Amino acid sequence: MSSLQEMKALFAPKSIAVIGASVKDGSIGNTVVKNLIESGFAGAIYPINPKAPDILGIKAYASVKDVPGEVDIAVFCVPAHIVLGAARECAEKKVKGYVVITSGFSEVGHEGAELEKQLVEIAKSSGGRVIGPNIVGVLLNESKANASFAPSLPYPGKTALISQSGALLISLDMATFVRQFGASSMVSLGNMSDVDFADCIDFYAHDENTNCVSLYIEGVKDGRRFIESGRKAGKPIVALKSGVSAHGAAAAASHTGSLAGSVKVYDAAFKQAHVIRARDLDELLDRSQALALQPPMTGKNICVITNGGGIGVLASDSAEAYGVPLATVPKDLQEEFKKCMPDFGSAKNPVDITGGAGLKGYEDAIAVALKSDWVDGLAVLYCETAVTQPDEIAEGVMRAIAATGVKDKPIVACFVGGVKCIAAGKKLTAAGIPFYENPDKAMSALSALRQAAIFQAEGIQDDYVPAKDVDQATARAVIAEARADGRNVLTEPEAKKVFAAYGLPVGKSQVATSEDMAVEFAQEIGYPLVMKIVSPQIIHKSDAGGVKVNIKDEAGVRAAYKTILANAKAYNADANIHGILLQSMAPMGKEVIVGSVNDPQFGPTVMFGLGGIFVEVLKDVTFRVAPFSSKTAMDMFPEIKSYQILQGTRGEKRLDQEALSVIVSRISQLVTELSDEIAETDANPIMLYPEGQGLAVVDARIILKKK
Amino acid sequence: MSSLQEMKALFAPKSIAVIGASVKDGSIGNTVVKNLIESGFAGAIYPINPKAPDILGIKAYASVKDVPGEVDIAVFCVPAHIVLGAARECAEKKVKGYVVITSGFSEVGHEGAELEKQLVEIAKSSGGRVIGPNIVGVLLNESKANASFAPSLPYPGKTALISQSGALLISLDMATFVRQFGASSMVSLGNMSDVDFADCIDFYAHDENTNCVSLYIEGVKDGRRFIESGRKAGKPIVALKSGVSAHGAAAAASHTGSLAGSVKVYDAAFKQAHVIRARDLDELLDRSQALALQPPMTGKNICVITNGGGIGVLASDSAEAYGVPLATVPKDLQEEFKKCMPDFGSAKNPVDITGGAGLKGYEDAIAVALKSDWVDGLAVLYCETAVTQPDEIAEGVMRAIAATGVKDKPIVACFVGGVKCIAAGKKLTAAGIPFYENPDKAMSALSALRQAAIFQAEGIQDDYVPAKDVDQATARAVIAEARADGRNVLTEPEAKKVFAAYGLPVGKSQVATSEDMAVEFAQEIGYPLVMKIVSPQIIHKSDAGGVKVNIKDEAGVRAAYKTILANAKAYNADANIHGILLQSMAPMGKEVIVGSVNDPQFGPTVMFGLGGIFVEVLKDVTFRVAPFSSKTAMDMFPEIKSYQILQGTRGEKRLDQEALSVIVSRISQLVTELSDEIAETDANPIMLYPEGQGLAVVDARIILKKK
Repeated sequence: MSSLQEMKALFAPKSIAVIGASVKDGSIGNTVVKNLIESGFAGAIYPINPKAPDILGIKAYASVKDVPGEVDIAVFCVPAHIVLGAARECAEKKVKGYVVITSGFSEVGHEGAELEKQLVEIAKSSGGRVIGPNIVGVLLNESKANASFAPSLPYPGKTALISQSGALLISLDMATFVRQFGASSMVSLGNMSDVDFADCIDFYAHDENTNCVSLYIEGVKDGRRFIESGRKAGKPIVALKSGVSAHGAAAAASHTGSLAGSVKVYDAAFKQAHVIRARDLDELLDRSQALALQPPMTGKNICVITNGGGIGVLASDSAEAYGVPLATVPKDLQEEFKKCMPDFGSAKNPVDITGGAGLKGYEDAIAVALKSDWVDGLAVLYCETAVTQPDEIAEGVMRAIAATGVKDKPIVACFVGGVKCIAAGKKLTAAGIPFYENPDKAMSALSALRQAAIFQAEGIQDDYVPAKDVDQATARAVIAEARADGRNVLTEPEAKKVFAAYGLPVGKSQVATSEDMAVEFAQEIGYPLVMKIVSPQIIHKSDAGGVKVNIKDEAGVRAAYKTILANAKAYNADANIHGILLQSMAPMGKEVIVGSVNDPQFGPTVMFGLGGIFVEVLKDVTFRVAPFSSKTAMDMFPEIKSYQILQGTRGEKRLDQEALSVIVSRISQLVTELSDEIAETDANPIMLYPEGQGLAVVDARIILKKK
Repeated sequence: MSSLQEMKALFAPKSIAVIGASVKDGSIGNTVVKNLIESGFAGAIYPINPKAPDILGIKAYASVKDVPGEVDIAVFCVPAHIVLGAARECAEKKVKGYVVITSGFSEVGHEGAELEKQLVEIAKSSGGRVIGPNIVGVLLNESKANASFAPSLPYPGKTALISQSGALLISLDMATFVRQFGASSMVSLGNMSDVDFADCIDFYAHDENTNCVSLYIEGVKDGRRFIESGRKAGKPIVALKSGVSAHGAAAAASHTGSLAGSVKVYDAAFKQAHVIRARDLDELLDRSQALALQPPMTGKNICVITNGGGIGVLASDSAEAYGVPLATVPKDLQEEFKKCMPDFGSAKNPVDITGGAGLKGYEDAIAVALKSDWVDGLAVLYCETAVTQPDEIAEGVMRAIAATGVKDKPIVACFVGGVKCIAAGKKLTAAGIPFYENPDKAMSALSALRQAAIFQAEGIQDDYVPAKDVDQATARAVIAEARADGRNVLTEPEAKKVFAAYGLPVGKSQVATSEDMAVEFAQEIGYPLVMKIVSPQIIHKSDAGGVKVNIKDEAGVRAAYKTILANAKAYNADANIHGILLQSMAPMGKEVIVGSVNDPQFGPTVMFGLGGIFVEVLKDVTFRVAPFSSKTAMDMFPEIKSYQILQGTRGEKRLDQEALSVIVSRISQLVTELSDEIAETDANPIMLYPEGQGLAVVDARIILKKK
């Protein structure tokens, strides 16, 4: 059975057993049965209880094995120490889904983690999947199955809301009614012993009742699969990642026992997974609502129609802050808009039809905007006035939109005012027009719709193709040698050999073990030269006086050789000295850094930044999860604040970003193909030259995984 | 009459005339009279209408002059072309406040601006003040005076809400009921022909019914008075500044005709005015509510009590983002908290009493937190669960707080859930505990309360004392000479003379007009030297080949003299060459820039940043409105992202920030004292040396105001 079919049994069940169904009012085992009945679940409900003949009027069974028909999912409400026994019976019964509400597993420590592992093993032994443990349950509007202890199914709609936190899920469930937030499902993931975010994305990507997947994430478990699932979903995904502060991460870790991962790596991974970020709970719901109800915004031109200058300016400010700045409406379109407003209105954008304009102004301006080729997305803003009725305006807005027949441009509405505005907003939302009480939120929603279109245009595949002219065998041989030597830090010449095997321009170099040999190598390599100590015990070569630059002749080589050796011995008398490295001295260029880490969630991940203070002081760096194409590497460069330096400042030429992008991609290939061996790499500095002149890797560092 | 007394007549009136009161239902003249009656205004209402004997049952007068008693304020509802005539009658009557709803003044162009000017002159001729024109009116809860065409007085409370936009004011008026946002007054400022934000701040600073002043600002008119009023208010002020985006600023300018000012200058001015920023409408209201209801947070330790791990982590993330990161609770306090929760709770902060904890958990934990010396502020978070009642929790929270008797620590609440949470929130708000539906907002509110305490501690005065050892006369003489020469750009030697007159270390320099003179000066100054062309027509000296550095001897001086002259002539044959500047070559230091602009709203304003790419690429600069003390200058340094460089990186010594702060303050004095003459200055670069070694101003530039 494919993973998708497995998930279907879980999220569109036809029969549900409740393990630990109870006659005791208020108990979870009783609540789940009651919830299934009250939510109107049309399939079979099987309470499992060894003592009671029936629960809430439904025949109960002593064991799941006694159930006459098939059981799609079993909801576990029994204490942790009983779960495994019940699970074994479910496995015999070939139950497809184990919804394990019970807590007391990996979140409480090592013993619980063991129990959890066994639970998954039992389920998988007969093709079952586990959601949880330590969850609220699953709330499925399409199946009318409230298989949880949350009080009711959520307000119906087109967003699947997946939450790692159960408490948050219950409270959001109730909030859906206040906010008129439409959910197709709500799923509590808890400890994610088996089913995780990626599984849910896979399923809801194919669910015709779901237009948007909304995630509350504390930490993902298999980062690479998360990226793959997100990327291939083809549906908007929004996520609120919690634990992004130092203190918050600590709290998250104690909360679910999952590692938080670096914030910057999550930033990168979300981009690669085509996941839109939300900065807080409101934005998660606001953006999800827009993405569920409206089409992506395929161009960049937002038109704002308003009856108030103030909220228009606020919308304009917010648009810029969200990266979708307003542009002035073209002259011919301005002429059209002018017909919809009094003389003192403004047709430039925001299109200010003024406070007196009323219903007709809105209807006319909306028609003009939606019919214009220039307009890609529309925000209709309204300030409640003493002379207009919010309800009438809302009706007019709906009428005008319907009359144009335009369906491929996103529209959001923002009414600022009192109870009448809230009532009007409910109508708009019900008609599929996302409603907000604040222009900032409306622009946040439109920017998410724009981002969805950008992700859509990027397509499912990063066009990464591994370079063929690499020599993995040589790289592995170098690493094996260092391993044999008992080291997990490669020397600079070793690291450069590995880099060279992957086609990185490390320049000519040789390691001399005598002064005469150094002179000989110097002639081969050519002047000017750099000479450096090579010793596994001397990592900070400069500090040890182990580096001499700009050596121009034989006398210089001999002097440097002596000095470096003497310095090194003075620095660390016990250091094992492999020799002295001679390398051609790269001309000065702009210093950049490309490094990699092995992220606990996402695996090999490549960092890029400018050298020196840019990395050290400004932390001006950006990441991508490896491997990726040079095209993706090109996308990284504009993300650093100092990008203009790569573009050329003060009349300098643009730097060779194309050459750099190839190198960054190759490093991503290297750290991926050797991810079993390599923990961290640093190509630092890389001298980057003007366009067409390439680059040179001046220093290299590779740290191996501890084995 | 003092300004404050004038404002009191405006904002606490005993009698109100309505100029243009009308019998026509729905007209503004009718609506204002009706609103005054319906809002329960206890003072005298005088409809002014030359035709009707009474309006809505109240005796009308043909002219304000016919009114028997005193008239505190006159609300103008007549068309613009009639306003001046009516105003003259009000002046005769000694009306104190002119609330001019009428539009058609400076917002429509030059002619309207003239009319507006005359209006103010008429009012001021008999000691009256003008609010507006182009406004909604004033809504005064204490006086029960809805002197506006907005539908009702706002929900009562302790915030004075002042809005430049009338449309926004009306809609927010209605929103106060939905949000239970308590307002003491709402004032629409419109064109601000006379009464502006500073006047309102001055008044509400002394108004015992107001705890917080909340501003919606498109642009202030007299920036310096705004700063003074804000600083001396002694009450929290929150502001939403609109028009902060490039496009938004353009829209704001067309909206109210006021200049928008630079965003960074507003940032600085708000800090100096002790005004707390809001990033959008929600935050304006959310923060105002907290500041009106709760005391400032005098220490930095926030304690978060929660029943849900998820919202706890989100609160922790937000706290860090708002600059008030959570700290781990001290061990002894953890022990106290542990008594309030089950074993699997967390006492570290967020204090997670867990979902099952219920009422008693909250009550106990709140008591522990408020009684602890460590805790400076408290956020009570609650996720709606299936087993607790929001209403009961709210009651318990209130009870627990009251029982401790603690009143000097701010408390905010956030309940995430459905309609029951909203209802519980209304109770909390009514009890003076600001309520939010999202942990992010609760932390934003607490951070505002923290900022209020920081501002309070800073005190009313910047401790700026003008340096006495300055020679303003010499500086003015240099400027006069340039003016006499028909220039508004000073040459480098001139600018350095001005800087030197204010005690800036510009080094030794002389201008030679012959090669021999240059040699003579060189011996006086000492080697190494820099030589530069001096010509008002050659501003970019390096581009013209007009700079030679590191000149070490007489031969070098002679060669440089010839080369520079030849280059300059080749660059611009018509340039008027004053000579060649010789100056001692300052040793290399870290390059910093101190500059100034003359902001249209705030006047002379000083900028600071690091040189080169930091300014040009990263725009990593910060501002303060001049003049200010060296202590304030010290506050500027940590605001740049590259601050660590001033602190010393890579084992370098900390740079001489103390010397720099003195120089920055002196430049602020210079540009203030000569603000009638100077448009812009640049000390760029300044070589800044390690601690104790001072700095050197290497190049100087002064641009005069056009006269």
